[in-house]
Amino acid sequence: MARIAYVNGRYLPIGRPAVAIEDRGYQFADGVYEVIKCVFGQPRDLERHLDRLERSLRELRIAMPMSRAALRRVIAETLRRNAIRHAIVYIQVSRGTAPRNHLFPKNAVPSLVVTVRRAPFPKPAEIEDGVDVVTLPDQRWKRCDIKSISLLPNVLAKQQAAEQGAREAWLVDADGRVTEGSSANAYIVDQSGTIITRPLGGEILGGITRQNLFAAAKAAGVPIVERAFTVAEARAAREAFLTSTSSLVLPVTRIDGQSIGNGKPGSITCRLLDAYLQAQGLAAVI
Amino acid sequence: MARIAYVNGRYLPIGRPAVAIEDRGYQFADGVYEVIKCVFGQPRDLERHLDRLERSLRELRIAMPMSRAALRRVIAETLRRNAIRHAIVYIQVSRGTAPRNHLFPKNAVPSLVVTVRRAPFPKPAEIEDGVDVVTLPDQRWKRCDIKSISLLPNVLAKQQAAEQGAREAWLVDADGRVTEGSSANAYIVDQSGTIITRPLGGEILGGITRQNLFAAAKAAGVPIVERAFTVAEARAAREAFLTSTSSLVLPVTRIDGQSIGNGKPGSITCRLLDAYLQAQGLAAVI
Repeated sequence: MARIAYVNGRYLPIGRPAVAIEDRGYQFADGVYEVIKCVFGQPRDLERHLDRLERSLRELRIAMPMSRAALRRVIAETLRRNAIRHAIVYIQVSRGTAPRNHLFPKNAVPSLVVTVRRAPFPKPAEIEDGVDVVTLPDQRWKRCDIKSISLLPNVLAKQQAAEQGAREAWLVDADGRVTEGSSANAYIVDQSGTIITRPLGGEILGGITRQNLFAAAKAAGVPIVERAFTVAEARAAREAFLTSTSSLVLPVTRIDGQSIGNGKPGSITCRLLDAYLQAQGLAAVI
Repeated sequence: MARIAYVNGRYLPIGRPAVAIEDRGYQFADGVYEVIKCVFGQPRDLERHLDRLERSLRELRIAMPMSRAALRRVIAETLRRNAIRHAIVYIQVSRGTAPRNHLFPKNAVPSLVVTVRRAPFPKPAEIEDGVDVVTLPDQRWKRCDIKSISLLPNVLAKQQAAEQGAREAWLVDADGRVTEGSSANAYIVDQSGTIITRPLGGEILGGITRQNLFAAAKAAGVPIVERAFTVAEARAAREAFLTSTSSLVLPVTRIDGQSIGNGKPGSITCRLLDAYLQAQGLAAVI
């Protein structure tokens, strides 16, 4: 069955041409997106994802394409039409369609696309053995706190990581410090058992799973320090992991080909993963 | 008459939905573009624009969507169908359509869009009086030599400049040096009459008009030094100007509200503008 997408007021098979050439999302990457996880058809953290969507739009001075209540209904209807048990809802809003010109158009109506697909959760082996990451220079722009569709550098980093046999790239700033992954926040656990992760700012996205991880750590009594860490620190860490809406809390057991800790997923990582799966209703799914 | 666009094998009214939602140009800014000026229907510098298109695609490992000869025919046919005397041809190539995933898809076919519109040449007053620029932090990614559609930071800078009453933003790196404009290369002329402009590299686009300007300067015996210049140097310059395919060679007479030189377009700038207009067959048009 072809997947059904919502596009500017209509539900269409996803392959159908549906976007205008001069949609500013297509010509300028002038738009933002959200990715929301659904477990047994139920969106998780929906309101916080919509909060972040509204924040991204506000930063770019793009209006919400419809009320939040209407958007919730579109999400529910798109989910219903696709009937996928564990899904990822993808929402994209662009500034709308107008003759090509860098300047904001006066009267453009924001474009809204909602799609649904099967959630690409980590494979059991990735959770049991952990995953590899490689470090690469961070070539992105300076407003990574905005969840924009200006993702070309992320694409290139993820592809390069895959070609080096790694699941993810951890991006490194000019000072040799890790910012985040190409599509996930990055964490290490130091020898004292403290989680270290980059503070919020223009260099990273404020992850919803990052918020959830913080809550899980607090509940478990695991301290978190928000500061930038170097690649050398990461390689010498006791544990490492990454978080994202679809990668969940994923142990990292090799960085640039070098084993982290004892080469197995760390005990703190596993504890927080379990707590996260429990909280998200995923304990029986993963 | 609605403009006609070429989109993946078809000629369509430009407003018609024509692009797939999962075109990677729409979801990842995973594509490149070119803008080619046409004077009396004749493309200018076509081969060098196509060279640059091929280079951008090569850097991103996207295949040319068709042979160069076929692309020339599509450009000619799109021009013919639109019948605009002085036009800008816009060519966009993305990596193609595939279910959303950062990784390069295995078998995607690149998407090709060609549109035509009236050339937005500078207004006579802009040439006679020069234009204002404001300096803003360069927030773009590190591969601005690739003419990618990942243009959100450029859009934001241009918009901010316009709201400050300026035609263009000159972007400034972390060291306080100008890289280029949001959609044009940047130049100053020092007190000795030497043109100074940033050398090629990841911080700027290798402009076709920049090449033409270099040729005009050489023919006129005006020396050019390729080095980064500071905002302070720019404000103290004798002349300043910018170049792009549609802005041509445009005098800059105010930077951050401060007059450059005597506040009028500089003599070297005007000489090179005249030579450029002559070479492009634009002398009787502008």
